[in-house]
Amino acid sequence: MDHGENDKSLDARLRDIEDRLEIYDLIASHPPSADTGADYYTRAVYTEDGVFDRGEGLVGAVGNEAIGAITLSPEHQQAIDGGMAHFTGLPRIEIEGDAAYVTSYIQILHPDALGDDRELPNHGSSPGFRIHRVVANRWTLARTPEGWRIKSRKLRQLDGSKPVREILEQALASYRPAD
Amino acid sequence: MDHGENDKSLDARLRDIEDRLEIYDLIASHPPSADTGADYYTRAVYTEDGVFDRGEGLVGAVGNEAIGAITLSPEHQQAIDGGMAHFTGLPRIEIEGDAAYVTSYIQILHPDALGDDRELPNHGSSPGFRIHRVVANRWTLARTPEGWRIKSRKLRQLDGSKPVREILEQALASYRPAD
Amino acid sequence: MDHGENDKSLDARLRDIEDRLEIYDLIASHPPSADTGADYYTRAVYTEDGVFDRGEGLVGAVGNEAIGAITLSPEHQQAIDGGMAHFTGLPRIEIEGDAAYVTSYIQILHPDALGDDRELPNHGSSPGFRIHRVVANRWTLARTPEGWRIKSRKLRQLDGSKPVREILEQALASYRPAD
Repeated sequence: MDHGENDKSLDARLRDIEDRLEIYDLIASHPPSADTGADYYTRAVYTEDGVFDRGEGLVGAVGNEAIGAITLSPEHQQAIDGGMAHFTGLPRIEIEGDAAYVTSYIQILHPDALGDDRELPNHGSSPGFRIHRVVANRWTLARTPEGWRIKSRKLRQLDGSKPVREILEQALASYRPAD
Repeated sequence: MDHGENDKSLDARLRDIEDRLEIYDLIASHPPSADTGADYYTRAVYTEDGVFDRGEGLVGAVGNEAIGAITLSPEHQQAIDGGMAHFTGLPRIEIEGDAAYVTSYIQILHPDALGDDRELPNHGSSPGFRIHRVVANRWTLARTPEGWRIKSRKLRQLDGSKPVREILEQALASYRPAD
Repeated sequence: MDHGENDKSLDARLRDIEDRLEIYDLIASHPPSADTGADYYTRAVYTEDGVFDRGEGLVGAVGNEAIGAITLSPEHQQAIDGGMAHFTGLPRIEIEGDAAYVTSYIQILHPDALGDDRELPNHGSSPGFRIHRVVANRWTLARTPEGWRIKSRKLRQLDGSKPVREILEQALASYRPAD
């Protein structure tokens, strides 16, 4: 939040807030879409030239149609059938005019097919869940007449390497002292 | 967020925002209540005819008094004694007049009694935590003179089955193209 | 949210909301800082006399300079090199004038060096992540001319003990019936 905001009109301050809450909902809708294969969400929220970049070794795509198609692939559907869960933490949001930048952590979980059933009192018996991946995401959004849309989503796994650190450091730019 | 909102009065726009932030706090208060057995929270936030539905095999209840009583059961207290943690991600919120619908993912974790102690530099030694369950939740809220109250909470485990997919798909209704 | 708020001016209601959203961003910036060793974030957001209390057995510190220095320690850097991830859920926020109180759960994860590679369709192969700790945090914030700053952060691991329950119960004070 910009501390000069009290110079803005009430309407402008309200629009800033509405923008942020709309973006929270956009980000919160991603896990339900990924875990049900809702390509209609993906087609609706990416721009026509939107980029989905998961790094080396994992399928990405360019364009809302192609990105949406990934969730319909037999491989993705198989993961859903197995109980895959995307779990998102509290995202960091920065809005600059008609662009917005979101940094989020996401866990990808699934029922542990190799786990032994264990009991938690009042919470039944379960083989437990396994965390397959933990990724840092950088979402670049654009304001459009239809609302905020995703121009790019870049993610990298937490592994101590430079690419994932760069994603995380971008979220902290406002705290970095000027040279 | 409704994109016709700029036709609303400033006061109405503010009330929409205040509603959402109140609902975030209601949802964020659930894990501390579940992990301490705070029946007073549960009694306060459910309606008198509120429904808590955890599916087959797990105890549910109807009515804020009965739902609150679950957290005081010997079984639930035993889980708390063992270090149970409810962990909630960013929820998806939709408000329609005096009703609101929240979709959230929750992990239920506990210290892993079978884990071997392992060291993480600067973060001590620990046997680690195990994820017992990952559930999708559909909360139906009602506006009351005392604030937003829970009319029903339905949850199902992530297992690829139809019931959990239905919960998640309800969160995406606004993105679904008209037929 | 205080239900008397409609007696406040539009400007005062907006400031309340802006405060909360600023605090969300402060809390959401912590994981990227911890997982990259961004001491500049920590120095900027703690007060000069700020307190970081992790309980017995883990290094804490007093003062923004000393707290920031922890993230630069060889031990913390080693954890980052190994892919440590801080993961924060939805926090509970209470604002009282120029003070604010935040309750949050945080998971500390790392790639499981002892895990066997497993495949999740469309999500590659991975040895998985292990949850080292799950902690409850109580953040006490102060309003300053430069924005909200951290006066203290106290955390305790979820283990069923009294100290962590006290942290969680503080988040529920507004729900507790008067005696």
